[in-house]
Amino acid sequence: MSNSNIETLSWQGNRFGVLKMIDQTLLPIEIKVIECQNVETVWEAIKALRVRGAPAIGIAAAYGVCVGLQSLPADANHEMLRRRLHDVAGYLASSRPTAVNLFWALDRMKAKAEPLDGTKNVPEILEALFAEAKVIHEEDRHICRSIGRFGQELVKDGSTWLTHCNAGGLATADYGTALAVFFAATEAGKKIQVYADETRPLLQGARLTTWELIQRGIDVTLICDSMAALVMRQGKIDGVVVGADRIAANGDTANKIGTYGVAVSAKAHGVPFYAAAPVSTFDLNLAEGSEIPIEERSADEICCGCGKRTAPEGVKVYNPAFDVTPANLIAGIITERGIISPVNRQNIERVLKH
Amino acid sequence: MSNSNIETLSWQGNRFGVLKMIDQTLLPIEIKVIECQNVETVWEAIKALRVRGAPAIGIAAAYGVCVGLQSLPADANHEMLRRRLHDVAGYLASSRPTAVNLFWALDRMKAKAEPLDGTKNVPEILEALFAEAKVIHEEDRHICRSIGRFGQELVKDGSTWLTHCNAGGLATADYGTALAVFFAATEAGKKIQVYADETRPLLQGARLTTWELIQRGIDVTLICDSMAALVMRQGKIDGVVVGADRIAANGDTANKIGTYGVAVSAKAHGVPFYAAAPVSTFDLNLAEGSEIPIEERSADEICCGCGKRTAPEGVKVYNPAFDVTPANLIAGIITERGIISPVNRQNIERVLKH
Repeated sequence: MSNSNIETLSWQGNRFGVLKMIDQTLLPIEIKVIECQNVETVWEAIKALRVRGAPAIGIAAAYGVCVGLQSLPADANHEMLRRRLHDVAGYLASSRPTAVNLFWALDRMKAKAEPLDGTKNVPEILEALFAEAKVIHEEDRHICRSIGRFGQELVKDGSTWLTHCNAGGLATADYGTALAVFFAATEAGKKIQVYADETRPLLQGARLTTWELIQRGIDVTLICDSMAALVMRQGKIDGVVVGADRIAANGDTANKIGTYGVAVSAKAHGVPFYAAAPVSTFDLNLAEGSEIPIEERSADEICCGCGKRTAPEGVKVYNPAFDVTPANLIAGIITERGIISPVNRQNIERVLKH
Repeated sequence: MSNSNIETLSWQGNRFGVLKMIDQTLLPIEIKVIECQNVETVWEAIKALRVRGAPAIGIAAAYGVCVGLQSLPADANHEMLRRRLHDVAGYLASSRPTAVNLFWALDRMKAKAEPLDGTKNVPEILEALFAEAKVIHEEDRHICRSIGRFGQELVKDGSTWLTHCNAGGLATADYGTALAVFFAATEAGKKIQVYADETRPLLQGARLTTWELIQRGIDVTLICDSMAALVMRQGKIDGVVVGADRIAANGDTANKIGTYGVAVSAKAHGVPFYAAAPVSTFDLNLAEGSEIPIEERSADEICCGCGKRTAPEGVKVYNPAFDVTPANLIAGIITERGIISPVNRQNIERVLKH
């Protein structure tokens, strides 16, 4: 968050330093920074959504590898490093199943440690891993700026947009993906309005998106998720832009639960619907969205919102954390390399391989 | 709620007796009964949704008139009665603007007091008003049973239904409108499953609908409103049935906010969408849904859910309590006189005037 003193994540010091993350579950009421002294803290922070948003999870995982390797003895050999890296990466990968950026970042880190054949000594490899985490972090800043630059071309002066969940500075190194479009449009002198879905069950829209937009002076109106169709019918919405957690080869896009319903409504009202995401969000190993694993989370997120019980004890609950919006409902995917539109396998391949 | 010891509303004693209502804002965690000693308590209970659901609001208003007239001096003349009745009815009518059953019940009560020409003495008129309130209450029980009987014919054994908000026993004298369909289907020996939208912001689905269905042994799964489109896409839903707060002459139907989005999703997935409501819910004075006044409620309902603040201070909020589903998205309206289908002006007139 360049407009405030809050950073989604930061690393202090050299590779023996400390990973700090803002606890997003407490925002905007309380601003608390978590210091990750061990990899278990990083894992728990990802699992509990203290750090969330696909790009931010990737950065947290990369730094998490560095945290996990800090406990390696000073005289560790290549085999000990290999084993520890394998364990730490596997452990972090088990935190959340849907956002592909998590696995992408861990794969980048593992690749950086190769070859483990002795051509580099262990401290050199550890330094290289730490440098790679910082590169992943820094790259994300530039990626978000590029997404904003491309995306803002879609935004007309005086237009009104709707977004779901939080794909903002807090979901990335800073600046965001979906919100980057609004930030860049505003910086380009366009006056816009935004409707923010509160995003049940964990209210990332109410807590995080409104907060980021207010900080940047953007006119934001908070609504319940169930009001999105109504405001579209009222003709208030010129376009929708959301983030993404994993995009299949055909453009089917997993994002926060509720996104699909917004896309269905957008289609019904002739409102263009866009996803904004770095190319690291694409998973070309998956032909289509039905193959994306969807995390199911605890019933308590729905039944004990805000700490107070709001449903009968023992009620059966279905709590998928994501849904998949089929490519045919998506007008375009805004990446750091440009806007993919129409969304189809050929156009995705062209952008990803250039 | 005939399956429990809880009654939505009850009147104890003669016309000098007391109106009792369960405080639905505390359910299902706390069961507290409000005793309405004066009309201000009735007004506040309607305003604050302690009693809610269009038919239950109508019954509360009818009894509310009796409560308001209790303070009339024993020697009151016709003019004093006329003035007091006018004031009490006008006051109660100011509690909530959307559900037409409120105005319908107040009109019935006012009509019952006519002629105020001295052909009946004041105590006789007061007795007649009290009797009318009890008739309105008792009629609703029969109406709900009839709605259930007609509606359950739509329900196949083994089918799965979705509902939004609470149109159950708590929204009526007992048995409900939309939920009456599920109750009657179950009583007819059909095994069904129900998905209940939690229904933000006040969670009537999570708090009240799941509770009523569990009490009657119906298999219910709680979801967030934003998950309805997903479960439809997954092919889990065979039909949707919801209540209604006001229905225009052309069939456009106002119901709890979020209903319209459910109807849009149902259309997109080929799922039939029904409304269930007594004929008192129709307002033939309104040609179409755009004329239905939509109540907007406090920002705090969205920002301070469950008592804890979940959005930045001062954030702009849009909180309409209802939306209007156009007739062309409604497969049928289930009334106590039968199912209106297709939903259009002619079919509505035929059923209402028979």
